[in-house]
Amino acid sequence: MKKHNFYAGPSILPEFTKQKTAEAIIDFAGTGLSVMEVSHRSKEFVAVMEEAQALVKELMNVPEGYSVLFLQGGASLQFLMAPYNLLNTKAAYLNTGVWAGKALKEAKLLGEVVEVASSKDANFNYIPKKFSVPTDVDYLHVTTNNTIFGTEMLEDLDVPVPMVADMSSDVLSRPMDVSKYNMIYAGAQKNLGPSGATLVVVKNDALGKVNRVIPTILDYKIHIDNESMFNTPATVSVFGCLQTLRWIKAEGGLVEMERRNIEKADVLYAEIDRNKMFQSTVPDKNDRSRMNVCFVMTPEYAQFEKEFDAFATAQGMIGLKGHRSVGGFRASLYNAMPLDSVKALVKTMKEFEQLKG
Amino acid sequence: MKKHNFYAGPSILPEFTKQKTAEAIIDFAGTGLSVMEVSHRSKEFVAVMEEAQALVKELMNVPEGYSVLFLQGGASLQFLMAPYNLLNTKAAYLNTGVWAGKALKEAKLLGEVVEVASSKDANFNYIPKKFSVPTDVDYLHVTTNNTIFGTEMLEDLDVPVPMVADMSSDVLSRPMDVSKYNMIYAGAQKNLGPSGATLVVVKNDALGKVNRVIPTILDYKIHIDNESMFNTPATVSVFGCLQTLRWIKAEGGLVEMERRNIEKADVLYAEIDRNKMFQSTVPDKNDRSRMNVCFVMTPEYAQFEKEFDAFATAQGMIGLKGHRSVGGFRASLYNAMPLDSVKALVKTMKEFEQLKG
Repeated sequence: MKKHNFYAGPSILPEFTKQKTAEAIIDFAGTGLSVMEVSHRSKEFVAVMEEAQALVKELMNVPEGYSVLFLQGGASLQFLMAPYNLLNTKAAYLNTGVWAGKALKEAKLLGEVVEVASSKDANFNYIPKKFSVPTDVDYLHVTTNNTIFGTEMLEDLDVPVPMVADMSSDVLSRPMDVSKYNMIYAGAQKNLGPSGATLVVVKNDALGKVNRVIPTILDYKIHIDNESMFNTPATVSVFGCLQTLRWIKAEGGLVEMERRNIEKADVLYAEIDRNKMFQSTVPDKNDRSRMNVCFVMTPEYAQFEKEFDAFATAQGMIGLKGHRSVGGFRASLYNAMPLDSVKALVKTMKEFEQLKG
Repeated sequence: MKKHNFYAGPSILPEFTKQKTAEAIIDFAGTGLSVMEVSHRSKEFVAVMEEAQALVKELMNVPEGYSVLFLQGGASLQFLMAPYNLLNTKAAYLNTGVWAGKALKEAKLLGEVVEVASSKDANFNYIPKKFSVPTDVDYLHVTTNNTIFGTEMLEDLDVPVPMVADMSSDVLSRPMDVSKYNMIYAGAQKNLGPSGATLVVVKNDALGKVNRVIPTILDYKIHIDNESMFNTPATVSVFGCLQTLRWIKAEGGLVEMERRNIEKADVLYAEIDRNKMFQSTVPDKNDRSRMNVCFVMTPEYAQFEKEFDAFATAQGMIGLKGHRSVGGFRASLYNAMPLDSVKALVKTMKEFEQLKG
């Protein structure tokens, strides 16, 4: 039976990424060795790192003066590294969910933090709109997609200070204006590749302005000076990221990714809005994530939740269970998710409605 | 042509690890999905993490009261995390090389550090023996194998304080007495699996004794409480580590690994000592690493270095180039290195001597 992979992360990757990685696990770049057992300083792996960095710059249209790194430790380490390197006196944080809150908490260890707005009052089911950002902060931190709650900032904000953004779950899903950000970071395991690598795009001029001693491994400048090879990177993860970056380019880049992501999200949200058994957890359509579509049973059909879960699983749907803090279901539709899998889910929802509705 | 992989890291892995990982990149645990695209919270991946932790405990004979973690960031992040969690007032460090020095440097950010001994006076070509360890330190930090300089502490030290050890390049290469250590850490990319995962074995009772606020991602207790899943681990790396751990167990465990490692090292050092064109960089035979065998041309044949490099490369030898701070050659003989590859290198050295000696 065909499986449809709706996991929130690690999550679906292109067939191209899987095939190329499986091949390289056996024989990498004609070396006769596995990509797992080749030095990161070998010319073959250095070429992987350099091409991955160059493709990020090309696909994301990264302006001059920025560096691209593939670090380790996930977004959770960046919650600490970003303020260590960029927060001198005061930073602003927009609190749009659990992960945004974790980022905010770590920043408080390093300076004054202003929470400019929060949607906690409604279990983070919307993106706060009307808030003011103090002009004396070093940056505004935003979480552009909230994986748990299914909300997303679909456009780059206009604010009077540079932004720092956790884009773990929507990086490379649409064209964006990198010049508005002093730093962008993203765990690889949604739109990029195997977990283990963490993409960091950082503006060089934004560094070197804090007055604290930065531990070596937490210092972006150290990583930049060592071309993302200060210590051994997660080589297989970076190799996988490169394959996905090549795939994105071959498929038409971020304009095409956005077109597909809009189409997939529209198909699924339309069914959620139409089907009398389901409802979105995000009332404002402008805030609905294209990456993580969260939905629950309508109150009159609440007793069917487990039954739908079993029904969908029997149709080959994997990873649909919603996060415990929201409940219900979550269909993650990252770049690699084909429209056909979304249509299969919609068909399953229609069939369930016909059976039980 | 058969390739012989002498890279210092990432480095040779068992064929078993390569085959099982290549299979799982396409279909993991019968899920129909790649191990790269399955949630770390799925029952299939949780089983991987749990078995890997249990096998580390079994193979290393870890006493009760210790936790096993697979973190990210490599030994370089542990240089910071170890003192953050374990250094309350003062720690002792044994300086046996570049990596030991890096560990020492980070610890100084967090407290008083006593360098109990150093072999820097002789470019780290020996392990200091007669030094005293203050009894009022929180721990003595040792680097059990010095990858760059080819020295190794082949037995667990007897010291009056608990040890913290960077075992990145000799973990699982011999049975050891874990009870002497408050913590052991090791990057995966030598004896364990693909880079990206970092093995940490830590004594639970040693934690919670420092007076500082520990950033969340740097706090061992957080990782222990979350069963090494506080944030997304490097899943493919952990999967690879599990395959290697299974292989070690099937091959006879650490007693058998040590027997093989002694045999391989003896074969190579015997040839280095016999062959008039080569010499070891480590004069004291008791300090010679079984993992990284460093050797240079003897002074009278110094002009043949590049020629031997080309000659060995033509015989299928890969990764023999020594680190720039030592020069010459380095043959890394980790667990997965077969005796046949060592014999092939010895044959190459003999042939070169016959040609040019």
